This record gives sequence, structure tokens and C-alpha cells, in this order.
Amino acid sequence: MTRFALTIEFDGGPYMGWQWQDHGPSVQGAIEEAIFKTTGEKTLVYSAGRTDAGVHALGMRAHVDVEKGLSSFRLMEAINAHLRPHPIAILHCEEVADDWHARYSCIGRAYEYRILNRRASLTLEKGRVWRVGPHLDADAMHAAAQILVGVHDFTTFRSTACQSASPVKSLERLNVRREGQHVIVEAAALSFLHHQVRSMVGCLVAVGLGRWTADDLQAALDAADRSALAENAPPEGLYFVRAIYP
Amino acid sequence: MTRFALTIEFDGGPYMGWQWQDHGPSVQGAIEEAIFKTTGEKTLVYSAGRTDAGVHALGMRAHVDVEKGLSSFRLMEAINAHLRPHPIAILHCEEVADDWHARYSCIGRAYEYRILNRRASLTLEKGRVWRVGPHLDADAMHAAAQILVGVHDFTTFRSTACQSASPVKSLERLNVRREGQHVIVEAAALSFLHHQVRSMVGCLVAVGLGRWTADDLQAALDAADRSALAENAPPEGLYFVRAIYP
Repeated sequence: MTRFALTIEFDGGPYMGWQWQDHGPSVQGAIEEAIFKTTGEKTLVYSAGRTDAGVHALGMRAHVDVEKGLSSFRLMEAINAHLRPHPIAILHCEEVADDWHARYSCIGRAYEYRILNRRASLTLEKGRVWRVGPHLDADAMHAAAQILVGVHDFTTFRSTACQSASPVKSLERLNVRREGQHVIVEAAALSFLHHQVRSMVGCLVAVGLGRWTADDLQAALDAADRSALAENAPPEGLYFVRAIYP
Repeated sequence: MTRFALTIEFDGGPYMGWQWQDHGPSVQGAIEEAIFKTTGEKTLVYSAGRTDAGVHALGMRAHVDVEKGLSSFRLMEAINAHLRPHPIAILHCEEVADDWHARYSCIGRAYEYRILNRRASLTLEKGRVWRVGPHLDADAMHAAAQILVGVHDFTTFRSTACQSASPVKSLERLNVRREGQHVIVEAAALSFLHHQVRSMVGCLVAVGLGRWTADDLQAALDAADRSALAENAPPEGLYFVRAIYP
């Protein structure tokens, strides 16, 4: 048996999310099927994060144990061939130690949320960004975002379906910057609650629009109550960018 | 009658090209239909360039004459509303003089061609770039590209269906740069022949792969013969970026 670490890019649009579901297509299911076609082995692919329906990945990390003797390059090429026409690609594959675990060995996760701030409808970026029409003050968003950095009870920013044992998380970084008509939010932490990034972005947009002040964001955090949320940003603007390992 | 200049962004994927066709959808046809729904007027929308099927635009310029009294902002908003769900958006609309002509007043056109240089299949950029698997030497491509800059007979790089009176064109700029795994080709000229940018990119890729030397590119240009072409790059990597006016 050899354990392989995979780096995966995918368009989350057509999937119910990363995790296998019995009622619709999943990224995990598509990759496990491609591995089955490659090796004849039923496997479980473990990922660093379980993204929601519609959420994309630029560099998801995962691992899988394979019995058949294949080099990492041949395995990657075969999985990619069998993945077509799925919008999922293995960008990198390498052998790792048997105790390396994509989820439990991970010491950091980074997401990016992309907003296109303009009135006109989406064309080339449809399904790739959240379009927000009125002008966003990205500087005000960045300043307010710093309220959320650090160790907090993030109950307000947590889906009611979240299975995490505790709502207390340490948010390492939350940066907002404007690039032309795009507003980009970068978030990094050891781990996130379910919907945490999208919920934080939804509240930062309320600040960017002038509907909320930084004090309103502070009050929403302090409330530790899901009903204090401004808005949950839609999934299509969210990208799992990278997982960090020791 | 008021003449309006439009700046248009579109995903060329679903269309036969810019120009109205009786056998399939066109960008021009979609915009003229949206204007008809707005004003009840049958109009002709003239553009700076007639892009091929599958070619995109970030900033196509066009003009249209409208009888109905509407401000440029109201006209733009109404056209955009009637364009949905077409992946076409009017980004800007302004009143211009009656003799301003999107095609004949234009003194410069700029295109960008986007290549993703990697082995793995496309996911998020499907339909947005040309994927080239083997490594491309972008520096060699840029150096060779300078052979094509200036006034030349571009017959080798011209579609047999091209309707231009002369194959002699002045190419102002042809720059190639690498941005991570992307290789970007920028082309600027007063005007281009049909398929000229895609044909130049196809030959530059032959250089980047080491299949052609710069001398081979020179020989292909000198041949002034379509059969000397290396390859016509596919449409989905090409973007009409901007049109310049005095």
C-alpha cells in the first residue's frame, strides 16, 4: 500500500460539494470513481476541507491509499484521464508517509472570496464571482475585518448544520483588497466552521455598502447568535486556495 | 436621433461570432434584439471588430442610432436588463457625435490571447484559455514575435475567407509574457486580417515548443502562403480587449 497526497483544482458548480452524497454528484465521488477505473480498487479520498455545493478549489489537498504499484506521475495521469469531462484536475501527486493525513496533519487552510463590484451582469465570470452592484468601500471592509481576527466564538458566522465541537476558532488573517472592479477577501486559519468564510464575507459586504458600521460587525460577533448575521455570501465566489502542512 | 457608443463585454462561447447570422445566434443579434425590446426600433449595431465564433470581448466598442429619447444610463440599464440571460453586458454607454463610427473612426485595436501551459485538463478556465501541455519558452516566443512587428504581407496568417482588400498590415505590438502557468500574448494594430491573431499565436506556440526556430517563423512570413502556417490557435483563448479612438 502506498499513500499518495493529491493537489486538486475543481469547478464546484456542478457538484453537491466535496463530500460523497447519495443524492447527487460530488467531487470526492468523481475522484474515487476515476481511481477505481485506474486501479480497480475501492478507495476513500480524504481531503483537507469539505467544501459546500458550488464552492471551487484552486489547491485542495487530499490523500488516498493505493495497493496497485504505480508511480505518482502515472497515477495522476491516469486519474486525470478518467476524470474527463469532469471539471476536476489533479495538479500534483506525490508519495507520502503512511501517517500523513490530508485533514489531521493540516496546520492551516486558506480561502479566497472574489467579488465583482459592478452594476452590469456577469458574462465571462458567471459562476466564478459574487456580483455586488453598489460601490463597496474595500478599505472600510479591510479595517472592519480586523475585528474578526484572533480567537473568538464565531457562532454568528456558523451554519446551523455545522458539526464542529466548538464555535471557538482562531482566525489568523482576514484581508480585503480592491483590484480594479474586483474586491478580494483572503481568509486563513487552522480551520473554519461550516459557512464561516461566506458568513464573514456577507457581513463585510454590509460594511462595504455602508449598511453596517465596524461597530455593527463587533456587535454581531459579540451576539454569538446566528440571527445577528447580515447575509451569507453565495458559494460561487469562494475558492479553497491552499492547505498547509508541517 | 441620438448616436450612442457602447462598450461591451461578452463570452463568445455560445455565439457564431459578433456578426448577425441567419443560421445561429450572434452577439450583434442579441444586442439588437435587446434594443428592440427597449425602444421598439429596428437598429443596426456597428462594432469596431467582427469577432469569430467562440472569441470573447472585454471591451468591444460599437455604436447604434436610437430615436427614442433616453439618457445613455437608462438605455444601458434597459439593454442590460433585456440581454439577460445572455452572457453579454454593456459596461459603458455614452452619447457621441453623429459622425462617430465604431469601425471607421477606430485608430487602434488590441487583442489578448491566453494560454494555460500545463498538462492537467481545464476546470475553472474551460472555454477561457488554450491549454498547451508541454513547456512553452515564453522568452523565445516574445523574441520571435518581434519578426512580425511592422508592415508585412500577412497572407500566411490570413484566413482564406478573409475579405480584406489587401494582406498588407502594420502590426504595432506583439508581446509575449509568462504569468505563472499562463502565457499571455498581446497584439495591437490599426486593424487585423481575419484569423491573424490566432494564426500568429499558433506559430508562436510552435516556437515556444521548440518545433520552430525564429528563422522558421521568418520563412513562414516570407512565404506569404497560407499553407506555410504552423497552426491556427483555437478561438476560446482570444479576447478583444480594446478599441482606440482619436
